[in-house]
Amino acid sequence: MTRTYVIDSIPGDGIGVDVTDVAMQCVDALAERHGFTVQWRIRDWNSDLYRKTGRMMPVDGIEQLSDGDGIYLGAVGTPDVPDDVTLWGLLIPIRREFDQYINLRPMRLLSGVVGAMPGIEELDIVVVRENVEGEYSQIGGRFGSGTDGEFAVQESVFTRKGVARAARYAADLAAERDGRLVSATKSNGIIHTMPFWDEVVAETVKEVPGVVVDKVLIDALAARLVMKPTSVRTIVASNLFGDILSDLVAGVAGSIGIAPSANLNPERRYPSMFEPVHGSAPDIAGKGIANPVGALWAAAMMLDHLGEKDASKSLTSAFEAALADGIATSDLKGSATTAEYAAEVLSRLKE
Amino acid sequence: MTRTYVIDSIPGDGIGVDVTDVAMQCVDALAERHGFTVQWRIRDWNSDLYRKTGRMMPVDGIEQLSDGDGIYLGAVGTPDVPDDVTLWGLLIPIRREFDQYINLRPMRLLSGVVGAMPGIEELDIVVVRENVEGEYSQIGGRFGSGTDGEFAVQESVFTRKGVARAARYAADLAAERDGRLVSATKSNGIIHTMPFWDEVVAETVKEVPGVVVDKVLIDALAARLVMKPTSVRTIVASNLFGDILSDLVAGVAGSIGIAPSANLNPERRYPSMFEPVHGSAPDIAGKGIANPVGALWAAAMMLDHLGEKDASKSLTSAFEAALADGIATSDLKGSATTAEYAAEVLSRLKE
Ligand SMILES: CC(C)[C@H](C(=O)O)[C@@H](O)C(=O)O
Ligand SMILES: CC(C)[C@H](C(=O)O)[C@@H](O)C(=O)O
Repeated sequence: MTRTYVIDSIPGDGIGVDVTDVAMQCVDALAERHGFTVQWRIRDWNSDLYRKTGRMMPVDGIEQLSDGDGIYLGAVGTPDVPDDVTLWGLLIPIRREFDQYINLRPMRLLSGVVGAMPGIEELDIVVVRENVEGEYSQIGGRFGSGTDGEFAVQESVFTRKGVARAARYAADLAAERDGRLVSATKSNGIIHTMPFWDEVVAETVKEVPGVVVDKVLIDALAARLVMKPTSVRTIVASNLFGDILSDLVAGVAGSIGIAPSANLNPERRYPSMFEPVHGSAPDIAGKGIANPVGALWAAAMMLDHLGEKDASKSLTSAFEAALADGIATSDLKGSATTAEYAAEVLSRLKE
Repeated sequence: MTRTYVIDSIPGDGIGVDVTDVAMQCVDALAERHGFTVQWRIRDWNSDLYRKTGRMMPVDGIEQLSDGDGIYLGAVGTPDVPDDVTLWGLLIPIRREFDQYINLRPMRLLSGVVGAMPGIEELDIVVVRENVEGEYSQIGGRFGSGTDGEFAVQESVFTRKGVARAARYAADLAAERDGRLVSATKSNGIIHTMPFWDEVVAETVKEVPGVVVDKVLIDALAARLVMKPTSVRTIVASNLFGDILSDLVAGVAGSIGIAPSANLNPERRYPSMFEPVHGSAPDIAGKGIANPVGALWAAAMMLDHLGEKDASKSLTSAFEAALADGIATSDLKGSATTAEYAAEVLSRLKE
């Protein structure tokens, strides 16, 4: 009786294709060694499909994904198709329809990778990003197009339920780590939603024994992550702040190419989605030089989520061992191609 | 016939008092050497006044400032008074009533200061922050307080006029620098105001010969400022993004304590306001260890704005010379007190 997981793989556009390819190879190799099977449903949902059909995914795309055990996404986006098409046509609906309200973005300083700051050896930060509301809302638009008086508005919407469940997830995670939770805010007076954020976060964290929350203004937090990145372990942040902070932290650790992202529906009512943080990088697409570490790390998070803890650890150890041995793509100042790096990872997978 | 400038000095709270004190001493010393006079109108507008009168400034505060040549602010904020009182009661109304729509935040790697990244020698970034609209609007609030369905909203408002004038100022500045302008955005699909921002910035910059604009997503820009800070020279950003980026850049350059800020009404219909970027820092207030560099740099920007270019340069050279000689406050890993550092600056002011 083997364990079988049905995973929808959406390579997407640009380097999304390269890195997904590598990640699937590694997952298959691990499956063989660890006694499970991954049944990939490869989806050609990308900008090409949009050019042909006017849609990034079929009308019943969400439904097609709904009975799977997880979604693995490369990246979407291409220069000649507007971002609102590629993103609102695929990425954002998946996050929302499947209520993937937690976007988990861990970052460590990986052995062999030179971070942006010297002398830092133990960076270990997890950003818990609220993933379905906040500054990313459908409410907004323009008034008086083409006139001098033209203006555009965007409504940020924060609900008690939405903030509380993100804070709760983050607090539980902090409890397993060092008990200290940093809440990114901007409540010094102007943004009406942020004192509300602070209040709900404080109330929620109070319920989790052993966790202390430190609310830090987003501007000061950005500076602190540059000056004292090791002083921060677990961050809870709104959709936009989490987006900014996770890229910033990846920069501190050396490259956006290494950053993974898990879009989780913690209750497991719906499939969760795993993706590297980086985009489709049209400038290097097809050159075979993309860094697959973010994608591999995302695949490891997927394996962990599926319950395949050993396989997950084996993958993380293998990509880190390859880096420690000096094998890396050019964004990390190495000279390996995507394929060369992937081969080294494959050869380091343990039973 | 001496040139006389009427400057309203608002030391404010906490270390605002310490650094304003030092800055006024230096400005007075420069005035004597450079043949002008500064007539300070010291305003005790701060949290103490609020505790006594229920107001951060008198009812006619704005009117009292309106006939001056400039405003010099230390910092406001104190633990027992809500931030929305201290900020909306003083800082924000001044920025808005005097239409100080540009917030100019230059940053350089100062001689003698160790930045967060090694091997960077030539950091030179100016953030041009839109200062009166955007994400900081009065529109917003809560619904259903205390209920499970409670939510809070905040409206971001971007006007054509507001974006265009900020972009124009930034483009003119970029034209004097290296011609490259980075526009911070988040227009990949979700925030309705940002494609509008991009459009107005692009149209505006087109009118300024020799300037090329590069729109960069805020998340990627945060990472880039950490990984390749020297690749960016002039940034135009919305109110919130400018707030975050300027602190981040100060972190890269070593400390928020060195960062200055000029709130400008470029048409000079109203007085402009100069302030350090840092806050009132209640934790170190009254200890005499605050770093006055941000305040001094802000004072230099004020002198420049008043037309006292030589005095402005003399002040900048002096505070940088002191740093280069290894004299610095503890945030810069030095051992000088505020007063000791100030004395060294004073002794280095040139004719
Ligand atoms: C592509 C974009 C909409 C997305 C986001 O901001 O959520 C991306 O930056 C990310 O971090 O996943
Ligand atoms: C105090 C606060 C309202 C202010 C801002 O966000 O504008 C501050 O952070 C600044 O940068 O001047």
